[in-house]
Amino acid sequence: MGNTFGTLYRLTTFGESHGPAVGGVVDGLPAGVEIDQAFIQHELDRRRPGQSALTTGRREADRVELLSGVFEGRSTGCPIGFLVRNADQHSSDYANVRDTFRPSHADYTYTLKYGLRDHRGGGRSSARETISRVVGGALARLALRPLGVEIRAYTSQVGPLALGGSYLDYDLDRREDNPVRCPDAAMAARMADLIAQAKADGDTLGGRITCVISGCPAGLGEPVADKFHARLAAAMLSINAAKGFEYGDICQHLDRRGSEVNDLFTSRDGRIRTLTNHSGGIQGGITNGEDIYFTVAFKPVATLLREQPTVDTAGRPTVLAMRGRHDPCVLPRAVPIVEAMAAMTVLDMLLLARGGKLF
Amino acid sequence: MGNTFGTLYRLTTFGESHGPAVGGVVDGLPAGVEIDQAFIQHELDRRRPGQSALTTGRREADRVELLSGVFEGRSTGCPIGFLVRNADQHSSDYANVRDTFRPSHADYTYTLKYGLRDHRGGGRSSARETISRVVGGALARLALRPLGVEIRAYTSQVGPLALGGSYLDYDLDRREDNPVRCPDAAMAARMADLIAQAKADGDTLGGRITCVISGCPAGLGEPVADKFHARLAAAMLSINAAKGFEYGDICQHLDRRGSEVNDLFTSRDGRIRTLTNHSGGIQGGITNGEDIYFTVAFKPVATLLREQPTVDTAGRPTVLAMRGRHDPCVLPRAVPIVEAMAAMTVLDMLLLARGGKLF
Amino acid sequence: MGNTFGTLYRLTTFGESHGPAVGGVVDGLPAGVEIDQAFIQHELDRRRPGQSALTTGRREADRVELLSGVFEGRSTGCPIGFLVRNADQHSSDYANVRDTFRPSHADYTYTLKYGLRDHRGGGRSSARETISRVVGGALARLALRPLGVEIRAYTSQVGPLALGGSYLDYDLDRREDNPVRCPDAAMAARMADLIAQAKADGDTLGGRITCVISGCPAGLGEPVADKFHARLAAAMLSINAAKGFEYGDICQHLDRRGSEVNDLFTSRDGRIRTLTNHSGGIQGGITNGEDIYFTVAFKPVATLLREQPTVDTAGRPTVLAMRGRHDPCVLPRAVPIVEAMAAMTVLDMLLLARGGKLF
Amino acid sequence: MGNTFGTLYRLTTFGESHGPAVGGVVDGLPAGVEIDQAFIQHELDRRRPGQSALTTGRREADRVELLSGVFEGRSTGCPIGFLVRNADQHSSDYANVRDTFRPSHADYTYTLKYGLRDHRGGGRSSARETISRVVGGALARLALRPLGVEIRAYTSQVGPLALGGSYLDYDLDRREDNPVRCPDAAMAARMADLIAQAKADGDTLGGRITCVISGCPAGLGEPVADKFHARLAAAMLSINAAKGFEYGDICQHLDRRGSEVNDLFTSRDGRIRTLTNHSGGIQGGITNGEDIYFTVAFKPVATLLREQPTVDTAGRPTVLAMRGRHDPCVLPRAVPIVEAMAAMTVLDMLLLARGGKLF
Repeated sequence: MGNTFGTLYRLTTFGESHGPAVGGVVDGLPAGVEIDQAFIQHELDRRRPGQSALTTGRREADRVELLSGVFEGRSTGCPIGFLVRNADQHSSDYANVRDTFRPSHADYTYTLKYGLRDHRGGGRSSARETISRVVGGALARLALRPLGVEIRAYTSQVGPLALGGSYLDYDLDRREDNPVRCPDAAMAARMADLIAQAKADGDTLGGRITCVISGCPAGLGEPVADKFHARLAAAMLSINAAKGFEYGDICQHLDRRGSEVNDLFTSRDGRIRTLTNHSGGIQGGITNGEDIYFTVAFKPVATLLREQPTVDTAGRPTVLAMRGRHDPCVLPRAVPIVEAMAAMTVLDMLLLARGGKLF
Repeated sequence: MGNTFGTLYRLTTFGESHGPAVGGVVDGLPAGVEIDQAFIQHELDRRRPGQSALTTGRREADRVELLSGVFEGRSTGCPIGFLVRNADQHSSDYANVRDTFRPSHADYTYTLKYGLRDHRGGGRSSARETISRVVGGALARLALRPLGVEIRAYTSQVGPLALGGSYLDYDLDRREDNPVRCPDAAMAARMADLIAQAKADGDTLGGRITCVISGCPAGLGEPVADKFHARLAAAMLSINAAKGFEYGDICQHLDRRGSEVNDLFTSRDGRIRTLTNHSGGIQGGITNGEDIYFTVAFKPVATLLREQPTVDTAGRPTVLAMRGRHDPCVLPRAVPIVEAMAAMTVLDMLLLARGGKLF
Repeated sequence: MGNTFGTLYRLTTFGESHGPAVGGVVDGLPAGVEIDQAFIQHELDRRRPGQSALTTGRREADRVELLSGVFEGRSTGCPIGFLVRNADQHSSDYANVRDTFRPSHADYTYTLKYGLRDHRGGGRSSARETISRVVGGALARLALRPLGVEIRAYTSQVGPLALGGSYLDYDLDRREDNPVRCPDAAMAARMADLIAQAKADGDTLGGRITCVISGCPAGLGEPVADKFHARLAAAMLSINAAKGFEYGDICQHLDRRGSEVNDLFTSRDGRIRTLTNHSGGIQGGITNGEDIYFTVAFKPVATLLREQPTVDTAGRPTVLAMRGRHDPCVLPRAVPIVEAMAAMTVLDMLLLARGGKLF
Repeated sequence: MGNTFGTLYRLTTFGESHGPAVGGVVDGLPAGVEIDQAFIQHELDRRRPGQSALTTGRREADRVELLSGVFEGRSTGCPIGFLVRNADQHSSDYANVRDTFRPSHADYTYTLKYGLRDHRGGGRSSARETISRVVGGALARLALRPLGVEIRAYTSQVGPLALGGSYLDYDLDRREDNPVRCPDAAMAARMADLIAQAKADGDTLGGRITCVISGCPAGLGEPVADKFHARLAAAMLSINAAKGFEYGDICQHLDRRGSEVNDLFTSRDGRIRTLTNHSGGIQGGITNGEDIYFTVAFKPVATLLREQPTVDTAGRPTVLAMRGRHDPCVLPRAVPIVEAMAAMTVLDMLLLARGGKLF
């Protein structure tokens, strides 16, 4: 249970890090969407391991095969099955975690819950599962593209290094200019240095990703249980290593009073708008047409390339030293994943909003 | 759509602030649970308006009537319908918002989405809806009680005043000793002063609530979409005025490296435990038996008892001055709501975990 | 679990036969629907006990109170909570079934499943629960009314007496002219006699209800799991005492070959139509714009006013003689229930179809 | 939307008749189930085309590849992705239906609903999709096997030839002895002749399949919406060409009175049992431990190898003559599909029942 995202736009994922393949089924993609396979592959490439010195060295082409639901270049309204074959598994790197629990990993809890686990590469709990999310997100973006919805995430903090100001202070189209995916080149360079240094120490770093959705239709969100931001939070916190979620900027300003953070209404170009956007584009759980923006916090990667004390599956003390190829910081590769989860959430809520109306 | 919480333990709520009643249906409460009506009422009393000078003066007894699903003092496994009659509506206080949008409220987005809205007291978007959640949470707690699960939330920040340290530094059983629901008496007094001052100014404050779930069984959570903390986040962010969610304490320490925040395993009393609990009792989306703790950020109440510029429903500029009885700060009354949402989440995930096993 | 019907138009019901009330919550009724309370009450009156000599003598006004979701006569898009108070319970009539299992009733299976049961009047398994469905169905019909959808069910068989031919041979608007709800007056009289005779013998009868949905939009149904007729079947078989479901007329003609029952296409009035309608308005699980028709079979009422051998809760043989007021045949009162379930299914599938499209 | 079966045991399917593959994802299979791949393949072989002269001549090995969720021969509790490559498509056989609607097929309604369709081999509406259901059903059976649940379906009617009596009159283990899958050899021979004759005429036949579930635990079913038989009916009617569903034998005896078909309770071997089983093992929507049996009616195959008048996609009259390889009667190959849907329903309801209990 628990491997399906969404209500009307639904992604069900499968696959383990060292099994034959990862993949999934997208159900609910409306018919007639142009399926731009190059775009889907481009998104996978943004997530792919080995794309820079900052990431794991695992070599995977991550070529996706669409198995159904597309006819003559367009979606048919029927489910899209897809898969990506795993190629470069080094399962022997994990022989020592077969009977040992890696600290702050899911090894122990999976064993508790299921009674057994595929220990190779973290099995199901590996971030390799997010390949399927990137495919699901890319398909959602293809549906949203004609509506003018744009989704742009970027690394806004790595360890102690945090971008100041708001997303409006940066040119988000620059975020892909560097391997950190930070739109400020100078800060990106400092972040890259910090990551390289942690890597050299066999250590890891966490940080934050900020995401901006612009052009999102107003009226999305289903109070009271399925408020837009509640769904967004659940989507983001389902990503590996995510620990926190905030939307708008009020959490940064909890020292302020209501009179300082209320968003006053005005009319502009014949539409009702807000003068400020502390609310982050969502009021009462429903989008209001302003930019939606939010931040996701990620913990440092749990896999350290240094010795750590731990216990084996029988509870006996032992020492674990991981080998192999690991990201010292997930942030750069998590950027397209955050975007994918956001895209799926927007499309799902859009379809739910349509499904709430007779005309 | 969107008024049901949960998968196997499900609460569906209904009701508006100034309609005849608020209420709901709980479906999935296991049979045989002792229904302690005094406990349910006690929880409602903790949420009730007018309980202190810090809250709205609306006078409501908030007596709940259980309409089904209980036989000779025990749950039957059949749905429990319930309602609380509204008594002390002052709808005339809202005459001026019939055709005007209150800033940072849901008036505008509800009108956008639904085409019409019940403007009286905020209608469906009023926090009065949370009565139903407190009932649903109280029933969940009655089911969890024999399992030893304890859920305790408290106000940890009001405006700029934040409790330092961790939840372990406080005696949480003291949180009900003051109207702020802060376990530190001195801080509670300062918070109360700050709230009183904001109220005198016709202004409002936000803050944070911290919640601790102890005694929660290990093995709850359904990766990858329904990780325990993803469900918890969605539950918390569905509460009125909630803006952010974090679990564990790693978000407070993003400047640290993995080697500083990994939770090492050890054996204690024949069980595998963690030496520290930065993870907040959840690893890989599954509870590990340690304390679960998390923080929810709330914005300042949007209703100000002072003039604010805004627009009317036709988009024309106007000035709005709210009358009536409003909370200057939701935190104290939101504490039992956070606990209720946590209780429902734990019970739902517990039942899902059981439903994932053959034996 | 299991007390919610529908995906986007959702009815959650609660209530027992002898508890304080039955009721429910409708979630997903689109905003702006005119709420004609007289129509809702009219539908309840069609289902009401005591309406003729053929039905139970329990006297209930069955007045529904809408508690939310309606503002100035129109639906707001927010959930509609409602209830009907129970008034005329004779719980003492059931004292003897507290510790005894009535044959072919749910007493034994509820006890098995839940460990306890409210034995009074059958508790949750009583057909009194269908009051909530009639309310949910009436609200759905109010939404469907402007679309020209018409739903008409009638009694087509009582015991051995079955109407011949097809629904096209009868004027369905005459079905309310007699207490049996059979559109053929002569057959209705024979059926009424048969029911009266069974009643006099303390015995009961089953039969069939046929239902016709005309004016249903084409394109409804979500293959492959949620085909229109699969949803319809589930809705119908959830009604108390229902044992079978068929749609179209092919089940009556299983001796025929494909060439005899295929529905050939033609063009009529600029639209593609079928020359015959053996398929019952559904092809491949999707409505095609032709009349949808189907039949539901009901078993004889299980409660007999005569002695039957059975066992008590300890498994000891005993003899049970039921007292009280019972329907000798559910068909006449089940007609509005079949219509209600059909209406909810149509509206739900209509909203799902809208939620499957971007434009 | 609409391609997922089940609540806790969930199968999501994808794939078209002439696309690269069909497949799916099973989510919710409990951990630790022994994955007997030979058994899964055996079930697929029972469904495979070309297995006898009575079926389509399409040649497919239908080898399933499991892509995840299995580790060292046992299920891990994580989703099982799987696929079966299509090999023997003759898409040119369908060139003439690209712009023409086959009578009583889904061509017209898919085009109406989705705006476009994959016309090759019926695309998504092809019964080739049921491969995925057979895999899902086989996995469910592997989970149910240690519980002693047995599921056996058989062809009980072909055109006018119907088996008399009840399932108890036949040795169901003989049902695989002949290509019709009828447990009565003499009747099987007559049925085979009838099918051969229809085939020779380019015509087709319908019929009925009866299914018996024995050893099913008592207490399964979630009234009032998710009664066991309501779920079963929805599962069965989702199968291609299914038109009707009945459970127990009361539908065959609607001329009888309640006193003739009530199932009286008795005690046998220390358990409460029923003396008869007209109810078909389900009372009040909950299984009672007796055999569950039901019948599914199937229409004659819509594809005729003879000329039929129809219209093209512009509504113009035309004549269609299908070529290619088609089943003259679906019954024999539908037997394993009925069993698969039954197995998935039992397992899903079993897990739901467990998820409804605290202990």
